[in-house]
Amino acid sequence: MSVQPTPADKFSFGLWTVGWQARDPFGDATRTPLDPIEAVHKLSELGAYGMTFHDDDLVPFGADNASRDEIISRFRKALDETGLVVPMVTTNLFTHPVFKDGGFTSNDRSVRRYALRKVLRNIDLAAELGAQTFVMWGGREGAEYDAAKDVQAALDRYREAVDTLAQYVIDRGYGLRFALEPKPNEPRGDILLPTVGHALAFIANLEHGDMVGLNPEVGHEQMAGLNFAHGIAQALWAGKLFHIDLNGQRGIKYDQDLVFGHGDLLNAFALVDLLEHGGPAGGQAYEGPRHFDYKPSRTEDYDGVWESAKANMRMYLLLKERAKAFRADPEVQEALAAARVAELSQPTLADGETVADLLNDRTAWEDFDSEAKGAQGYHFIRLNQLMAEHAIGAR
Amino acid sequence: MSVQPTPADKFSFGLWTVGWQARDPFGDATRTPLDPIEAVHKLSELGAYGMTFHDDDLVPFGADNASRDEIISRFRKALDETGLVVPMVTTNLFTHPVFKDGGFTSNDRSVRRYALRKVLRNIDLAAELGAQTFVMWGGREGAEYDAAKDVQAALDRYREAVDTLAQYVIDRGYGLRFALEPKPNEPRGDILLPTVGHALAFIANLEHGDMVGLNPEVGHEQMAGLNFAHGIAQALWAGKLFHIDLNGQRGIKYDQDLVFGHGDLLNAFALVDLLEHGGPAGGQAYEGPRHFDYKPSRTEDYDGVWESAKANMRMYLLLKERAKAFRADPEVQEALAAARVAELSQPTLADGETVADLLNDRTAWEDFDSEAKGAQGYHFIRLNQLMAEHAIGAR
Amino acid sequence: MSVQPTPADKFSFGLWTVGWQARDPFGDATRTPLDPIEAVHKLSELGAYGMTFHDDDLVPFGADNASRDEIISRFRKALDETGLVVPMVTTNLFTHPVFKDGGFTSNDRSVRRYALRKVLRNIDLAAELGAQTFVMWGGREGAEYDAAKDVQAALDRYREAVDTLAQYVIDRGYGLRFALEPKPNEPRGDILLPTVGHALAFIANLEHGDMVGLNPEVGHEQMAGLNFAHGIAQALWAGKLFHIDLNGQRGIKYDQDLVFGHGDLLNAFALVDLLEHGGPAGGQAYEGPRHFDYKPSRTEDYDGVWESAKANMRMYLLLKERAKAFRADPEVQEALAAARVAELSQPTLADGETVADLLNDRTAWEDFDSEAKGAQGYHFIRLNQLMAEHAIGAR
Amino acid sequence: MSVQPTPADKFSFGLWTVGWQARDPFGDATRTPLDPIEAVHKLSELGAYGMTFHDDDLVPFGADNASRDEIISRFRKALDETGLVVPMVTTNLFTHPVFKDGGFTSNDRSVRRYALRKVLRNIDLAAELGAQTFVMWGGREGAEYDAAKDVQAALDRYREAVDTLAQYVIDRGYGLRFALEPKPNEPRGDILLPTVGHALAFIANLEHGDMVGLNPEVGHEQMAGLNFAHGIAQALWAGKLFHIDLNGQRGIKYDQDLVFGHGDLLNAFALVDLLEHGGPAGGQAYEGPRHFDYKPSRTEDYDGVWESAKANMRMYLLLKERAKAFRADPEVQEALAAARVAELSQPTLADGETVADLLNDRTAWEDFDSEAKGAQGYHFIRLNQLMAEHAIGAR
Repeated sequence: MSVQPTPADKFSFGLWTVGWQARDPFGDATRTPLDPIEAVHKLSELGAYGMTFHDDDLVPFGADNASRDEIISRFRKALDETGLVVPMVTTNLFTHPVFKDGGFTSNDRSVRRYALRKVLRNIDLAAELGAQTFVMWGGREGAEYDAAKDVQAALDRYREAVDTLAQYVIDRGYGLRFALEPKPNEPRGDILLPTVGHALAFIANLEHGDMVGLNPEVGHEQMAGLNFAHGIAQALWAGKLFHIDLNGQRGIKYDQDLVFGHGDLLNAFALVDLLEHGGPAGGQAYEGPRHFDYKPSRTEDYDGVWESAKANMRMYLLLKERAKAFRADPEVQEALAAARVAELSQPTLADGETVADLLNDRTAWEDFDSEAKGAQGYHFIRLNQLMAEHAIGAR
Repeated sequence: MSVQPTPADKFSFGLWTVGWQARDPFGDATRTPLDPIEAVHKLSELGAYGMTFHDDDLVPFGADNASRDEIISRFRKALDETGLVVPMVTTNLFTHPVFKDGGFTSNDRSVRRYALRKVLRNIDLAAELGAQTFVMWGGREGAEYDAAKDVQAALDRYREAVDTLAQYVIDRGYGLRFALEPKPNEPRGDILLPTVGHALAFIANLEHGDMVGLNPEVGHEQMAGLNFAHGIAQALWAGKLFHIDLNGQRGIKYDQDLVFGHGDLLNAFALVDLLEHGGPAGGQAYEGPRHFDYKPSRTEDYDGVWESAKANMRMYLLLKERAKAFRADPEVQEALAAARVAELSQPTLADGETVADLLNDRTAWEDFDSEAKGAQGYHFIRLNQLMAEHAIGAR
Repeated sequence: MSVQPTPADKFSFGLWTVGWQARDPFGDATRTPLDPIEAVHKLSELGAYGMTFHDDDLVPFGADNASRDEIISRFRKALDETGLVVPMVTTNLFTHPVFKDGGFTSNDRSVRRYALRKVLRNIDLAAELGAQTFVMWGGREGAEYDAAKDVQAALDRYREAVDTLAQYVIDRGYGLRFALEPKPNEPRGDILLPTVGHALAFIANLEHGDMVGLNPEVGHEQMAGLNFAHGIAQALWAGKLFHIDLNGQRGIKYDQDLVFGHGDLLNAFALVDLLEHGGPAGGQAYEGPRHFDYKPSRTEDYDGVWESAKANMRMYLLLKERAKAFRADPEVQEALAAARVAELSQPTLADGETVADLLNDRTAWEDFDSEAKGAQGYHFIRLNQLMAEHAIGAR
Repeated sequence: MSVQPTPADKFSFGLWTVGWQARDPFGDATRTPLDPIEAVHKLSELGAYGMTFHDDDLVPFGADNASRDEIISRFRKALDETGLVVPMVTTNLFTHPVFKDGGFTSNDRSVRRYALRKVLRNIDLAAELGAQTFVMWGGREGAEYDAAKDVQAALDRYREAVDTLAQYVIDRGYGLRFALEPKPNEPRGDILLPTVGHALAFIANLEHGDMVGLNPEVGHEQMAGLNFAHGIAQALWAGKLFHIDLNGQRGIKYDQDLVFGHGDLLNAFALVDLLEHGGPAGGQAYEGPRHFDYKPSRTEDYDGVWESAKANMRMYLLLKERAKAFRADPEVQEALAAARVAELSQPTLADGETVADLLNDRTAWEDFDSEAKGAQGYHFIRLNQLMAEHAIGAR
């Protein structure tokens, strides 16, 4: 198996990632702006297949229509030349001061209307560029102060916004799907829909929930101390993994946006294993883009930026290679059996068994030897050690 | 307003709270067992209205039927004497070694069947005692090791279990509702349905989801760094706040189960304010029991236990008093208006307005002055300071 | 007791706090620059006694000497007019790209030399303005990647820098003391000297450690989940609380810099109680400035900025008032005695007692009834409830 | 290089690790007691060189002298038969209820005296068994409630205890050294000396500080979100790494005590690299025992226990092998040079250079091109990617 990326690997990058100028809360930019055209060419050379962007990444906020058209036209040309696609587009509702209390859930109604207009305009562009997914990260939808935000009303407005946009997509026949991106905090003290779970629950209350799924990000779930592979499994279980943001995070702290695999390495292994081999019948569980949403560290110049882009793809492919070997190893298969992992796919009630039947099964209660069962070993550490050894290429 | 608790305040306690013998991961029990009958009488004297329990709190695991009947009969008698009710019952699927890999989602199918039987038996008792809510905390449903648990299969089994139990309640005509209790970790490395959000999302995929809601616990959400009042607001928004566990936690660490209000005090104020005044029309948002699920610290003897029981109720009533004053303060009302809090309840689109109408409204985009709006102050800190001053009784 | 601040309360503010333009990692500035002269006048009106600054807050980075002199001269005039003092000065070694890998511990030696020169220049200014304390926050002294920083070498360089600067202060006869400000992370993935403890330990290895103490910040310790009042107690115990940064933080997440008391309110109460009544003989434990290092939220305009400045001082004074009442309450004194709090000040060995004496004391071991002592209650919850009630003004 | 452990690798295990019966805060024991003699033989077979214990692990609390002597005699015999050594001994001041408010810092003076006696007795045993290090983990030295513990007084008592014990060791001529083990919380809400830094700072204030160092534990520092390799580097820098506890932890949560390398794998790699190659001249930085303080998961039977013991040693050896290859790789050496890692070992001032000289060096300030230096790349991500690839055996 090669670890040289090709478009078949479906690696995509946000324009805002390699283009991040490295301004942080305590420091000024350390890199000059990156021309989106250069980004397209460079990522294509490195083996990526897709490029994504926020409206304002490509077209400066407030640009007039003529400038906008010209920028987009140059961008399309670069895409055509390289064969890079735009599988996803998103709208920036967080950088400009107008969104300081949110976009869809700002306490100020006129801001909410402006936010809707900004997104509607960008949905047209997304459709025009052939995107399949429209991501919405509500980074400013939240609060620092508990009395300052009526969360129930905010969820009403969030729903209104998403359903309105979905209806627009239906009306225009665009075929786009929406993917919400949860995050627990930063830049707001508490962000609405803070985790994969909260966002899934919200979707269940939408009118057009069928068109709406998730774009979970590794670091965002880990900022809440949650197991990312578990979150992705629940999203897959609900049929809602529409897109994914890969990166790295080292524990509960500010949003680090490290290279994929440079954070919690074992969980990254588990994630790749899940995406590649965790389907219901054991096949690929997710077929969409492997999208990197990371930030090249502020210490890096553009050489470092491109090294970091390569590192993301290389880590994914290396882990994919190791996950494949893990699944193929007979000793692993034996260990999985000893740990009864597959037994969990067997329904608890037999086919056709009713509660009454269960109540009549003396082996399930009256004759069940709870002490003996309590003493039974599950052999999980051995299995985990095998996983760790595969992760570090030791088998 | 009195801060002397009465049954009208609907305060309830788990038998396992005042009855906790204070065994922790590094220490032996510091208190002798508490007779459930004494607990009933004592809590009644203190002004509580309800008592809840796990099966094994009341009846020792493995007791024979005769002993069980006698214990229950004595317990009922104490309830009758005091007027204390049993609004909620729950089943222990976590203490005994047999559940070390979970109950409903153990990799071992025979354990899953045994777990269902244990719960079914206890549902009968819950119904018999007149409980309205059956809580299920799946503290052992989880994993330490990513390869050792197929999370999608586990969610299938979890759903099978909950739907099976719900069907049983329907079949028996019990009128019980189920409330799932999320927790992110401890005792498992990662627990399934780790937050309010994940549990709400799970319920949306149930066959009998209408009978299933939540029992969120203050400390459990705060162990993931989440804002508890926000989580409760989302549960209310989804119509799923069936029960609530009040306690205190000081940040992201092991599960502390402190007295309510002895953790994050400002968030406790916001919570009480939400429960008491956060309804759609401004009234009481939650009418069920105010249930304390806490642990009297290991340093305390039984005097300290009863002091801690009183402290829970007193903190709730004090915060309720302060929240009432907060809502009644004209300066607060003025500050809420300045912060545009109520404006968020106004739909973003006008009544009958379509997306086409919005696209034609030049004030929403073409003529919108984003710079002026970006400069507008939201006055949130002043509002928060007013809240803090009310919380500390300084107004 | 009045909660109207006066200079006698020794409240000081960083120029960078009220002057923060509210640029965050995901958003542009929402406020126009604040003239330092206006800040001086405004804070003086509000009752502050001091103003502090980083070199670059007052004089833009790279300004020529003439501009610098004029700015400083205007600033001194404003100080003279208002009576505001400058008790502390600090140097910015984090905003400019040149410091992206640190100042004193950059891997690049020429950057380290430049950093020393920048600080030396600013020490002259600090002395000239009559400051007593020179704070050093090494926010960029750290790393994201474990192989990229030789931490032992970095501590050597850190020591070299601090000792060099201390020697300079001695040579010039300035009478300044240094105060190091720990922080665990952000903007670096891991910052050197991450907590109060690490910084105290570092000082113990300095040549001029006697001139170097700490400037702990509420939120920085809480970002590591540590109890701030405990950290301050250890700093006081070591004689190293040279300065303090007051603000608010809601748990382990990005650095929030909220208003003091708007984070963990009970710990803020404990802190004020410690500073005001925690001296060895029960008197004031810290007599230096009560310095606010916070950020007015990005949602606020300048009205909100000044409201937030007032809120900081008001919260401190309200908590001071409550702490005084707490200490004066006879029931609290009785509860403290029941909890044996003062007994901990009694040495474990009697005056003149040797280990041999202890080994011969049969009451200490052979005749000690560990079971009875193990059953003894410490009455801590009652004491904490009294503290909570005082904190919320309920007694 | 072999990954088969031998005594030359100096692997040691706590008797309480393989002997843990798997009782946790929510569950009963799942394993029967392990005979210490069996533990000695089994660990010896697996290649360990040492065994450590708390007094109560070996001799039940309260055993009479005759039983104690017999148990110790049997244990010594097993050591002699296997060649296993006892490099470290420690005393349990946390399990019994008598220590519920601490040992050395209990508010109750008689408990403090009892604690000293218990430790003194065990120091004799440690010396008798030839231990070099006496570890003290003060897990109960702390508080849940801020008013209940006078932290400054507690630190006085802590110092009194440690200095008293050190004097005893001097008086007896035992040649033992003490190693304090920090932990931020659990089982107390906040533990005194919560991190490596706080403990180092405490030691600097001891009378016999030269005899006292640290025994840092991987998971304990990571429970505060701190970088363990950084903490170890500071301990080495202070000459205080007397012993080390290796295990695994997955982020900020309850104390997991996983197998070494089953938590943060990249930080484990960095740690092994530091211990093996991070000495001042590039050699071994730590020569003491590689001690595992972990807990075999509650799901395991004794087969799993021994698998977990093997896994700890195997992970260490595998990472050691990878760290050696990392250091030997010419591309890594080139990348380290590009990242200027070694340049940090060069003093900032030249040999003999004074501050006056520095002030006269125009290249350091007046002619320094801060913009050009700010644009310079540090190539850290490439270096980290090389480290990650070596960690996962991909080079």
